[in-house]
Amino acid sequence: MAVLGLGLMGRALAEAFLRAGHPTTVWNRTAAKAEPLAARGATLAATPAEAVAAAPLVVVCVADHASVRAILEPAGGVLGGRTVANLTSGSSGEARRTAAAVSRHGADYLGGAIMAIPETVGTADALLVYSGPRAAFDRHEPVLRSLGAGTSHLGDDHGLASLNEMAVLSVMWNVLNGFLHGAALLGAAGVDAAAFAPLAKTGIETVAGWVPGYARQIDDGAYPVLDAAVDTQLAAMRQVLDESAALGVSTALPAFVKDLAERAVAAGHGGDGYAALVEQFRKPSEGRP
Amino acid sequence: MAVLGLGLMGRALAEAFLRAGHPTTVWNRTAAKAEPLAARGATLAATPAEAVAAAPLVVVCVADHASVRAILEPAGGVLGGRTVANLTSGSSGEARRTAAAVSRHGADYLGGAIMAIPETVGTADALLVYSGPRAAFDRHEPVLRSLGAGTSHLGDDHGLASLNEMAVLSVMWNVLNGFLHGAALLGAAGVDAAAFAPLAKTGIETVAGWVPGYARQIDDGAYPVLDAAVDTQLAAMRQVLDESAALGVSTALPAFVKDLAERAVAAGHGGDGYAALVEQFRKPSEGRP
Repeated sequence: MAVLGLGLMGRALAEAFLRAGHPTTVWNRTAAKAEPLAARGATLAATPAEAVAAAPLVVVCVADHASVRAILEPAGGVLGGRTVANLTSGSSGEARRTAAAVSRHGADYLGGAIMAIPETVGTADALLVYSGPRAAFDRHEPVLRSLGAGTSHLGDDHGLASLNEMAVLSVMWNVLNGFLHGAALLGAAGVDAAAFAPLAKTGIETVAGWVPGYARQIDDGAYPVLDAAVDTQLAAMRQVLDESAALGVSTALPAFVKDLAERAVAAGHGGDGYAALVEQFRKPSEGRP
Repeated sequence: MAVLGLGLMGRALAEAFLRAGHPTTVWNRTAAKAEPLAARGATLAATPAEAVAAAPLVVVCVADHASVRAILEPAGGVLGGRTVANLTSGSSGEARRTAAAVSRHGADYLGGAIMAIPETVGTADALLVYSGPRAAFDRHEPVLRSLGAGTSHLGDDHGLASLNEMAVLSVMWNVLNGFLHGAALLGAAGVDAAAFAPLAKTGIETVAGWVPGYARQIDDGAYPVLDAAVDTQLAAMRQVLDESAALGVSTALPAFVKDLAERAVAAGHGGDGYAALVEQFRKPSEGRP
């Protein structure tokens, strides 16, 4: 294998390959970061082209897609017949652009995303998703699996892995925003965030446990009530909005939550479970970019 | 102990008291629900007053606060000197109203909230929070602890427990909204929600693990970067907004996320960690109720 880019995550990827016993060639713009890997058995390449030439599978993990294209362009002559698995973060459009650039040189392109911290790469806890030609994924899956037990292929579209990464980041921001609003609300009533944290954490983990069941409902297009109907929850949403206004903190987020549920009720979903609100999220926004 | 209200949660509370060996008197509007508890050793009361008269600690868990007041009013003559722990959901204003009604009869009032499902009540996994006079909590804490190992007192304000419950519900809706937006986004690209669920769940659980650290930052008023600075995250937020618009799903939530971060950057928090956004949530909203 070849690993291009030896930041925190790139080094973790190379180490996981080495631990699994795969011959691994590494390259980094500043060579010093490669030396500890050499001590563990990695071969150091002087240029990206030298690394690419050494392996059928080239894993790239750098700052952004523009850097990926800049690094691979001079290696174009040796890319033919290889597979590039790009684990660099970016939008799905950027991923498709990089895929086109790589494909011009006769290489297969797999977009990838790492849902793990460097410390868990190569373990059962690491989730990695790929998208692009299924045959290329199948060919390299046994090796890719050494980066994390949760390795899966999402589809042929080169941009799907990036899109999933963006969606997961988006979920994470919303979790954080919910917590920060709650902390602001309670802070206004004199409660420390540290006192709220265990309760918030329990609430978040509870919802994490509901996610697979709600996902099935979304795929089925039927939303039986699991915890409480939207109608029932709307009453509590209005209370949260009132509490926020009364305590003088921002009402923007609770107003968003309540308005969304009201639209779902208006659309006939008052007696359904919360997953019915996915239909509101599916509607394009008017007048937005 | 006395338990008034034997819905799913009320029965779980009474069973936890019985398991812990506490003499327990129960009452429910429809007496049939009380009978299985009698078989386990509970004493059945014919009226709320009879139940209240039997115990120094009266736990109430019914549909709403108006019901609590309606149930306790005819028991006013025997409330004096007892403690009412009200585990019924509602706003902090409702809790203070019920506290006033109970206090008029010479009883202590503890507002409470259960952060657990009925199945975990009485176990190490159940979190219960109370607010109201500290002395009343301290007096009954050993008994209350049999309802859940995570039993704590939040402060003297009768409404604080309700406010915490509202805040936790609010966090949960935001987690769900983040997931539903992500599922809508990926659905528009042809990805099943079931394929997204494991990634979303991992992302949610990751943030749950960050909550205690972020809470400390909020209490300290200093926001060192733990994962990525707001500036860095803002670039990805813009990508999520663009992806949502390109795929024709609602941009309202990603626009909210991005606008909030932009306001934090404008306020000088671009180089801080995400917890700095709490300061945006603390600002009252203009022109809202």
